Amino acid sequence: MATQETVPDAYDDLLEQYERATYIGDASQVLSWDQEVMMPEGGTPARSKQTSALSGARHDVLTSDAFAEALETAEAADLPDREQAVVREIRREYDRAAKVPKSLVERISEETSNALPIWKEAKADDDWSAFAPQVETLLELKREYAEHIDPDADPYAVLFADYEPWLDLSVAERVLERLRDELVPLIDELNDVQTDLADPFDGTYPEDDQFALATSTLEYLGYPDEHGRLDTAPHPFSTGTQFDARVTTRFDESDPVGAMGSTIHEFGHATYTLGLPKEEYGTPLGQHRGLSVHESQSRLWENHVGRSRPFIEGHVDQVNDHLGSSVSAQNLYEAANRIYPNNCIRVEADELTYHMHIILRFEIERALLAGELDVVDVPQVWNEKMEEYLGVTPETDAEGCLQDIHWAHGSFGYFPTYSLGSVMAAQLYDAARADIDDIDARLRAGEFEPLHDWLTENVHRHGRRYKTNELVRRATGDDFTADAFIAYADEKFRSLYGI
Amino acid sequence: MATQETVPDAYDDLLEQYERATYIGDASQVLSWDQEVMMPEGGTPARSKQTSALSGARHDVLTSDAFAEALETAEAADLPDREQAVVREIRREYDRAAKVPKSLVERISEETSNALPIWKEAKADDDWSAFAPQVETLLELKREYAEHIDPDADPYAVLFADYEPWLDLSVAERVLERLRDELVPLIDELNDVQTDLADPFDGTYPEDDQFALATSTLEYLGYPDEHGRLDTAPHPFSTGTQFDARVTTRFDESDPVGAMGSTIHEFGHATYTLGLPKEEYGTPLGQHRGLSVHESQSRLWENHVGRSRPFIEGHVDQVNDHLGSSVSAQNLYEAANRIYPNNCIRVEADELTYHMHIILRFEIERALLAGELDVVDVPQVWNEKMEEYLGVTPETDAEGCLQDIHWAHGSFGYFPTYSLGSVMAAQLYDAARADIDDIDARLRAGEFEPLHDWLTENVHRHGRRYKTNELVRRATGDDFTADAFIAYADEKFRSLYGI
Repeated sequence: MATQETVPDAYDDLLEQYERATYIGDASQVLSWDQEVMMPEGGTPARSKQTSALSGARHDVLTSDAFAEALETAEAADLPDREQAVVREIRREYDRAAKVPKSLVERISEETSNALPIWKEAKADDDWSAFAPQVETLLELKREYAEHIDPDADPYAVLFADYEPWLDLSVAERVLERLRDELVPLIDELNDVQTDLADPFDGTYPEDDQFALATSTLEYLGYPDEHGRLDTAPHPFSTGTQFDARVTTRFDESDPVGAMGSTIHEFGHATYTLGLPKEEYGTPLGQHRGLSVHESQSRLWENHVGRSRPFIEGHVDQVNDHLGSSVSAQNLYEAANRIYPNNCIRVEADELTYHMHIILRFEIERALLAGELDVVDVPQVWNEKMEEYLGVTPETDAEGCLQDIHWAHGSFGYFPTYSLGSVMAAQLYDAARADIDDIDARLRAGEFEPLHDWLTENVHRHGRRYKTNELVRRATGDDFTADAFIAYADEKFRSLYGI
Repeated sequence: MATQETVPDAYDDLLEQYERATYIGDASQVLSWDQEVMMPEGGTPARSKQTSALSGARHDVLTSDAFAEALETAEAADLPDREQAVVREIRREYDRAAKVPKSLVERISEETSNALPIWKEAKADDDWSAFAPQVETLLELKREYAEHIDPDADPYAVLFADYEPWLDLSVAERVLERLRDELVPLIDELNDVQTDLADPFDGTYPEDDQFALATSTLEYLGYPDEHGRLDTAPHPFSTGTQFDARVTTRFDESDPVGAMGSTIHEFGHATYTLGLPKEEYGTPLGQHRGLSVHESQSRLWENHVGRSRPFIEGHVDQVNDHLGSSVSAQNLYEAANRIYPNNCIRVEADELTYHMHIILRFEIERALLAGELDVVDVPQVWNEKMEEYLGVTPETDAEGCLQDIHWAHGSFGYFPTYSLGSVMAAQLYDAARADIDDIDARLRAGEFEPLHDWLTENVHRHGRRYKTNELVRRATGDDFTADAFIAYADEKFRSLYGI
């Protein structure tokens, strides 16, 4: 390992300035959390000014001459590996901040502000044509954005890298194609057997009871009170730092199983954030690797732990106590895992069909960015693919191509990270199972420490030290592929449905 | 009125940059609110980094060459009165940001961080001598700070102007001396008569009931849900902008009257914030005039409205409904207004003796800054003055000169604004009474709109347009003096105590 002496002053300067930018960005996250969870509605005009001033201040730090100079000097130096990784990550952020003209950034921000209410109205009116011009504009602006960052690359790959910086789009594509090829026939098969699984929660479960259950479940899983909090939000999310990682959830009084999944999912995100090294707070080594890795942590806890038989066997009494129900572990297991292909809404999809919703969006996004699909034709293509992949056709565009907010945000390239995260979760969990003695017995007994430790050791503590595939390879011994997920899905659902 | 044409571009530039600084400062306020009210304890290290990055970013905007240039150009132009006022206020902030070396600002911030835990421990140990060296250091640093801003001025006057920018210290001094000269004999007299006033709340009043009462009282007073929220905090405060002005309160299960006063007090602060012009958000005309004027609004609602007989007559049923009590309006009036000189704690003091606590601190602070009093002698002087002004001697320094956090914060010059605000409230309320038809009947009927409107028209909407005394003169027809408060106190307490 290299000694401290080989690190030039420019590196320290660079890091100090970069940390300031991170702190300002994190302050902005606190404001966003507040806006979603706490802020009275009338606060919006002032909040917009505040967040825009913070994003300007962060941009100023990252694009200053002093910053560029320190970056170049640091890059030219002969740095140890670890410091090289830090500089690589800072360069990436610098390029994305400095190469895109401020006017374009402002234009995109303005157009997404415009697009949001138009999307909401179009969805309410079930009228894709009212939203289409906005999608057209945003696609155009995002193509321009991608061109500034890398004129030689596939624009979709550039946009995808905003969310998943160091995973080749070709790898992502391979994984998603594999999912499509394997899951479509599996879903068909499961659809045909018509096994009757339990659906035991047919009453009304008051929000207060569900909140108490969510709180006690978080405590059971080891979520530390002194470093987080649970609130409700219309769209559940998790945010924060390694010192303060908060989760939100939402409750449907007729569907306590849904809220439980969502709570454990957000808990998974929070454990990643909390597992980032505290002493690296502010540096790239104290930040998450990307959205796929982040999602792998939420899905691992949601699906591989929360929906597993041993976890449910250990948890079912807690559930019954809070909900006043008397459901058996087997019935809860079935309720948490049954698939329902006859559903058009992504956020309500089960663990398996979920991926079809993503693949469809991925294919449409790519075609749109490449100019191979006209925006006006999206509804038709959407519905055809729904029929092909899931055997259902949405009755309205509101339940079809207008259902998600992402495109109104201009977030093209975001969707795949959901599926990639799920797939990665399976690969990581296999490796953890191999390393941890009798993990099922531990889950049944509510002993989550060994799994926490394994994930911290192999994933969280590295921050952005390694590129995504290398992180996976170091943790699991293999490159990132869909193998583990396919095997897991096949075994679990065939067994569940008795085929 | 001058036309827009006379305003040079430099003025607009200046304002745009200044607004950015304001937005960053307001973002910082959101972080502080979050820290007090929502943040899990473990979040502190990250939060410190974030707020310090924001204060650095704000400082950078205010002290940039571009800012200084725009300021000088704007000052040299022939501006209309209103724009002149804006430039005057920006110049004041610029000087305070630019004249003090960054190293000194950081040193002060560091030493106050150090001082806080030392103060807490010294208070717990009842050991002034453990805290004294910190006070010494902070006094030294604050003298240096004042010298940078104005080497020719009394350092205490410079520090006082951090909180109350445009009120001569000589005026403040005159008001406080008048209070001392008039109130000491009045308190003596009231002490002697031993009238037995009602103290009807002798039970336990659960926090939930008190919270519901506070919520309904805020609604009754006209606090708008869509622009604010109520939470609990160990030290009640109010914060925010004209779009989102939040209040906090705290509850003592044995003292519902105290919580009510504190809630109405913070409501008064929030009404001022909410009354600032929305279209001036970010400019000096959209910001409060200073702490005395701010405190005048909280005290006006707390004392002149909330502790008045007509308000209590209209509110008592609400109180009884929520607390399950059956107190008469007369008894509630007595409970809310009785004085208890036999109390050593400022924040628990009644409306009248409160001022003695402030005057004592003011006199000690001034002597310390002037080097006329040694830090080590503070306990003795404190106790002598307590005996002289209130006829009591604290049993410990924890209940004496160690009780307040202000000096550990380095906030010398802050205390007087509490009393000045009270005094100003009386003068403003007299003017409002004269302008509003039968205000007592309106308070009794829960009609607060006319008073809100009067305060908005005469105080809130001006922001920093006028210096403090001019604001008072425009609102009341007279210069700021203690006359109205003395007359009010004399009449109210003599009548209450039957002398």
